[in-house]
Amino acid sequence: MTEKLIEKYAEMRIKPYRKDSEYSYTCGVFPTIELLKRKPQYVIRVAMSSESDKSRGSDIVRELAKENGIPVVTDDKTIERIAAKDNCLCAGVFLKYEEEIRQDTDHIVLVNPSDMGNIGTIIRTSSAFGFEDLAVITPACDIFDPKAVRASMGALFGIRVKLFASFEEYLKTPHRGSQRHIYPFMLKGEKLTRQIADEAVAMSKEGEHFTLVFGNESRGLDDSYLDIGRPLLIPIRDTVDSLNLPVAVSIGEYMFSAKGEKK
Amino acid sequence: MTEKLIEKYAEMRIKPYRKDSEYSYTCGVFPTIELLKRKPQYVIRVAMSSESDKSRGSDIVRELAKENGIPVVTDDKTIERIAAKDNCLCAGVFLKYEEEIRQDTDHIVLVNPSDMGNIGTIIRTSSAFGFEDLAVITPACDIFDPKAVRASMGALFGIRVKLFASFEEYLKTPHRGSQRHIYPFMLKGEKLTRQIADEAVAMSKEGEHFTLVFGNESRGLDDSYLDIGRPLLIPIRDTVDSLNLPVAVSIGEYMFSAKGEKK
Repeated sequence: MTEKLIEKYAEMRIKPYRKDSEYSYTCGVFPTIELLKRKPQYVIRVAMSSESDKSRGSDIVRELAKENGIPVVTDDKTIERIAAKDNCLCAGVFLKYEEEIRQDTDHIVLVNPSDMGNIGTIIRTSSAFGFEDLAVITPACDIFDPKAVRASMGALFGIRVKLFASFEEYLKTPHRGSQRHIYPFMLKGEKLTRQIADEAVAMSKEGEHFTLVFGNESRGLDDSYLDIGRPLLIPIRDTVDSLNLPVAVSIGEYMFSAKGEKK
Repeated sequence: MTEKLIEKYAEMRIKPYRKDSEYSYTCGVFPTIELLKRKPQYVIRVAMSSESDKSRGSDIVRELAKENGIPVVTDDKTIERIAAKDNCLCAGVFLKYEEEIRQDTDHIVLVNPSDMGNIGTIIRTSSAFGFEDLAVITPACDIFDPKAVRASMGALFGIRVKLFASFEEYLKTPHRGSQRHIYPFMLKGEKLTRQIADEAVAMSKEGEHFTLVFGNESRGLDDSYLDIGRPLLIPIRDTVDSLNLPVAVSIGEYMFSAKGEKK
């Protein structure tokens, strides 16, 4: 951060999060370490609880903050104000940022996700399975809400997330290339098989990357997605009408990262 | 239900849920339909919002209740009292019940799950992938809490759930047979491959059923499970320290139901 910004935020009273806030925060040692490791340039301040010595990780937090010239203050009031009911020994306050997604990678696209816990869980799983570029089609829930940050366990800071006003906008991104393979997940799709996933993974290794697309929690993807790419269905019994969104995404990601394969 | 019980509950004022309540309730049309289809014998009453005609499913609710001699009352006050902030057109009030799990099926065991949303999501996914017998090792969160019922989308009523005081108690259940194969999911386990899962599915078809075991959200399974069965790991990158519990269970269930296989 520039000197000017550091000065601006040095004395600022950190308020509870709102969607239009300039900054958000991590809550807890593990996500704060991830924040300081991956996105130190956006961190305004680290607030520590007076009980933070209870956690072994708090030394790592102090070390990383020091390396990056980030002020660390012991400040129970701020922690109490922003952590609500959660038990929180340490909070990293950071400016919200925008990023570009890379074009030479496989993508996940979420169309109008509405639940902050879900999007955080999806970010955590995406990072776990090596998907580092996430496009979110708006309207969507706020990826920087502390609830989403918390559910991501800090994985938010290790992947690239970009918002698009529509799926068409996403498709227009430069250098997408004609060779990107799109797989919308929907109830009217073709049954997902290992063969389909393995072929996509093999093509990705040759530079023809793929995109997995998932719809909103209640509505899924509308029929217009039947004409885009190769629509796929995760087969389930008729005792439930659909899978939970993070579950569906995780199974897609697991299959399309060729996990479970003998290697 | 017996006449006596119907009488007892006919006029009872339905209170907000507590862990020691005799009864719990569904919130919403879809889970209430599942309740009335699968467990009508435990249903005390159906409460409808005066706006319930907005939902097409409310006719099905009335029909199912009538078939089973269950009183249906239009009662906005009860709905408001029990639904908290949720939008809820219809609630099915049911007595909490206990069930045995079957021994001639594959099982899921959850050791000390602590989050009600998670256990509900796991029940929904288990039903989706055909796992109908769930053992829960206590202490654990309350499977009948309305939050768990809601996250299960009513799938709770279509599967069998039994609580055990310890994993040893679960292993002692009669007729388990020596041929049950146990797979604890843990970070120190062997990498899960398609071959391992496919072999287990093949053995299950021959009558040698399997059990997938998952630990608590924060702690996972302790090292004592390394000596039980064949411990497995879902491989992930080191950017996150673990998978979200419902995500881990869903990948295990997906792989061990041989989904994604050409059939």
